[in-house]
Amino acid sequence: MLPEVKIAEVGPRDALQNIPTFVPTHDKFALIASLIEAGLAEIQIGSFVSPRAIPQFADIEALVALLKRSFPLDLFCALVANERGAADALASGIRNIVFVFSVSEQHNLENVHKERAASLAALARITEQLQKGGAKTKIRADIATVFGCPWRGEIPITEILHCLEQTAKLGITEITLCDTIGRANPRLVEEVLTACQREFPQPQIKLRLHFHNTYGLALANILKAYEMGIDSFDAALGGRGGCPFIPDAPGNIATEDVVFMFEEMGVSTAVDFSKLLAASRFWHKILPQTPLTTALCKVNSKTYKE
Amino acid sequence: MLPEVKIAEVGPRDALQNIPTFVPTHDKFALIASLIEAGLAEIQIGSFVSPRAIPQFADIEALVALLKRSFPLDLFCALVANERGAADALASGIRNIVFVFSVSEQHNLENVHKERAASLAALARITEQLQKGGAKTKIRADIATVFGCPWRGEIPITEILHCLEQTAKLGITEITLCDTIGRANPRLVEEVLTACQREFPQPQIKLRLHFHNTYGLALANILKAYEMGIDSFDAALGGRGGCPFIPDAPGNIATEDVVFMFEEMGVSTAVDFSKLLAASRFWHKILPQTPLTTALCKVNSKTYKE
Repeated sequence: MLPEVKIAEVGPRDALQNIPTFVPTHDKFALIASLIEAGLAEIQIGSFVSPRAIPQFADIEALVALLKRSFPLDLFCALVANERGAADALASGIRNIVFVFSVSEQHNLENVHKERAASLAALARITEQLQKGGAKTKIRADIATVFGCPWRGEIPITEILHCLEQTAKLGITEITLCDTIGRANPRLVEEVLTACQREFPQPQIKLRLHFHNTYGLALANILKAYEMGIDSFDAALGGRGGCPFIPDAPGNIATEDVVFMFEEMGVSTAVDFSKLLAASRFWHKILPQTPLTTALCKVNSKTYKE
Repeated sequence: MLPEVKIAEVGPRDALQNIPTFVPTHDKFALIASLIEAGLAEIQIGSFVSPRAIPQFADIEALVALLKRSFPLDLFCALVANERGAADALASGIRNIVFVFSVSEQHNLENVHKERAASLAALARITEQLQKGGAKTKIRADIATVFGCPWRGEIPITEILHCLEQTAKLGITEITLCDTIGRANPRLVEEVLTACQREFPQPQIKLRLHFHNTYGLALANILKAYEMGIDSFDAALGGRGGCPFIPDAPGNIATEDVVFMFEEMGVSTAVDFSKLLAASRFWHKILPQTPLTTALCKVNSKTYKE
């Protein structure tokens, strides 16, 4: 038997944050329910951020309350980038918090409006808070721009290792290396992972990967990471979440494509592919304003073999 | 240094055969010239077939004559599926002939209207003819449906090995395993290649690969094959050549994507990526009727980093 993989669906956060019109809470609930029905065991439902920054997530507390009535909250995670967000997340009852910061200083400034050191200091205080609270809520870190930054280009491996070290020393054991702009390639994945796996004990520090498909390389990158022992990957239904200004520019790697590849390889994802395609069609009905990606074309044209 | 790869462009054959309107010979010449300008060292210019079967290639002799005035003919190859085609190809002066047949009996019947054994018998006579002629013209075999057939599904490895054996015993040393309908996955690539490389001496029998990107797995498959020592891959500019009835359904793996992946990995393809994108834009201007693929969207939207 080949090692299984776990796909974490980030569509409800990464697709919806790009949609300017507010998606009603009950629609968000229905979108998420369709993903659970397909068997996805982790779903990123949104961000605890200021509604001024991302109005789409103004209802995130209401969404958590609604989900709690139907599903175990262990299924869900939400993104935070500061202590205020983490406090709100904690208060909502959500069980998994994902703290995001960038290895690239400039990207961190643009994305979360503070220096990287300030993000890491916030992460330290949040982690301490959670540990005091008895740690019913888990936290992991998403490190953005690991494989490239729009301003800085390629990131030195020493800086990536520094960020991992700063994160791991807080007691955080699960860390996602994010290819925020899709600049990874299989060779770079191998280099970065080799260094990270050498410096940090495996599997005590669990590394996850998040690839964008901007240049079409995400599946090749996922394959390479899988062959190096990584078993957890983010993906977004329909390949949503990319740059909204480029029609058909792929965003996140499509959940459909990741599940299809692994299941065809005989690697279990625990996802029911037919139900995933049903979810994909349902998402397209609820969110017709999102661009028709290649993955969606394949779903709509029944190209995929179910 | 990582081993280099050679990309063979099949667009002039595989894209054009799907276009119902006749593309004038001088336009075909210009399309091919743009590919040479980009550095592609092998270009499949069309098929020597009955003009009743594929009217698009009715001018192939004229095209070869035109190309011969500007370029060394070693750059080009053409597809044949029978002795008549091979004789015409030989007479035209083309230096590389690609003989196509399918491992799947039913696909061979549908595609070239004869049984597989009849195809192999024709290949034997063609090869003998070429060897008698002093072998200035090289021949290789493209074996279709190796990774799956629309009618038969997955193909037993014993049958693939049988076809390779029948081909190799004729003295043919270069054989392309073709994923005609895009059903390969990295695991299947590994299984098939492991068996083929074990049974046939490497590099005496040179194996090449041809992947369609129907389900988005082609680059992952190419990566796997490359890691197993394969250094020659077919690709088609813009990802053309797929099913013309499905808008945006990927066809062949896009040359742009293959070159981009390898060059990003630090693997030389000898292709100038900027000139390849120029060729891509030129093709789109000359052939506006072909569907806008993901690769073309990336070219048009300037998503690619040049």
